[in-house]
Amino acid sequence: MAKESTTIDVGEPSTVTKSTIHEKKKGFVAAAAGGGYKRGLAIFDFLLRLAAIGITIGASSVMFTAEETLPFFTQFLQFQAGYDDFPTFQFFVIAIAIVASYLVLSLPFSIVTIVRPLATLPRLILLISDTVVVTLTTSATAAAAAMVYLAHNGNSNTNWLPICQQFGDFCQATSSAVVAASIGIVFFILLIIISAIALKRH
Amino acid sequence: MAKESTTIDVGEPSTVTKSTIHEKKKGFVAAAAGGGYKRGLAIFDFLLRLAAIGITIGASSVMFTAEETLPFFTQFLQFQAGYDDFPTFQFFVIAIAIVASYLVLSLPFSIVTIVRPLATLPRLILLISDTVVVTLTTSATAAAAAMVYLAHNGNSNTNWLPICQQFGDFCQATSSAVVAASIGIVFFILLIIISAIALKRH
Repeated sequence: MAKESTTIDVGEPSTVTKSTIHEKKKGFVAAAAGGGYKRGLAIFDFLLRLAAIGITIGASSVMFTAEETLPFFTQFLQFQAGYDDFPTFQFFVIAIAIVASYLVLSLPFSIVTIVRPLATLPRLILLISDTVVVTLTTSATAAAAAMVYLAHNGNSNTNWLPICQQFGDFCQATSSAVVAASIGIVFFILLIIISAIALKRH
Repeated sequence: MAKESTTIDVGEPSTVTKSTIHEKKKGFVAAAAGGGYKRGLAIFDFLLRLAAIGITIGASSVMFTAEETLPFFTQFLQFQAGYDDFPTFQFFVIAIAIVASYLVLSLPFSIVTIVRPLATLPRLILLISDTVVVTLTTSATAAAAAMVYLAHNGNSNTNWLPICQQFGDFCQATSSAVVAASIGIVFFILLIIISAIALKRH
């Protein structure tokens, strides 16, 4: 009787422990699977950042070097167009250069999310700063795009004449810079979506 | 002896159950606290959306109604400036109107996050769509700002003369619309940060 009761008593705790271990195992497996999936997101985030660095440096330097001097000139005047003739293009060069530097500085945080895929703080920091920086990128790009549009088409209502007939190469360079920066905006949107998905609980 | 062993055996499971209940209670309390805190965030999100609706409708309609006719005219020409003389301002009116409609449509999702503060899917949907819409808002605002700057200062390098000396009221109206839309951008950034914090695990 005493023996029986002992076996029953031993049996009960053992099943409890078994089920607890089982649940713990399940938890670990789920965490490991979530970790792997989030590590994949973090690696994608890192690669996107590298691509965005390339494209923003490209956009900024193309705009910075956009310059055209016409082959004819008068005694007093040489016809020349450069990015520094347009305050909007100056803003573009500076803003996109700042964005590129931000992206370089954000790489360590991105590496932290690869090493510790379940840490939420670096993710949150990245998401918030990406959101602020995407508005800077978009404002610089949109303002430059408005000027490029005006340079191409002019505005007859205000007598602003198009200058792209004279300065074709300059216009092409500034247009390319705007297109490159627009691709950079798409990269930023992807980065924010990745951070949001990685922040989400299971 | 048998009695003693029984008491010990009864004792063990009872402590296990007690600790489990205690942990469960703690979990419930934490969830409730998290729920309350997230409900507060959701209510703030809803109020911010209402404010953003007001300011975007205001910006769009101020730009739409910006018009000035000068008190003198020639036989063939009446000097008049309206938002539809500038493609950039037309883009602004349409884009900001779209943003305002999006905000109205996003209100039900915001209400869902108030009712169910721990649901992650509506949060994620709001965060991603907010991110896309903030770039639309920013691009419209920045492009309009570039045109307003040009209207105020002109550009001597390209012979684009400022028009704000003649069309002062028109320039003031467009500037106000740009400022209102800029405040809307700040609201959007706050909305995204709120969504990110609400998505974060504890």
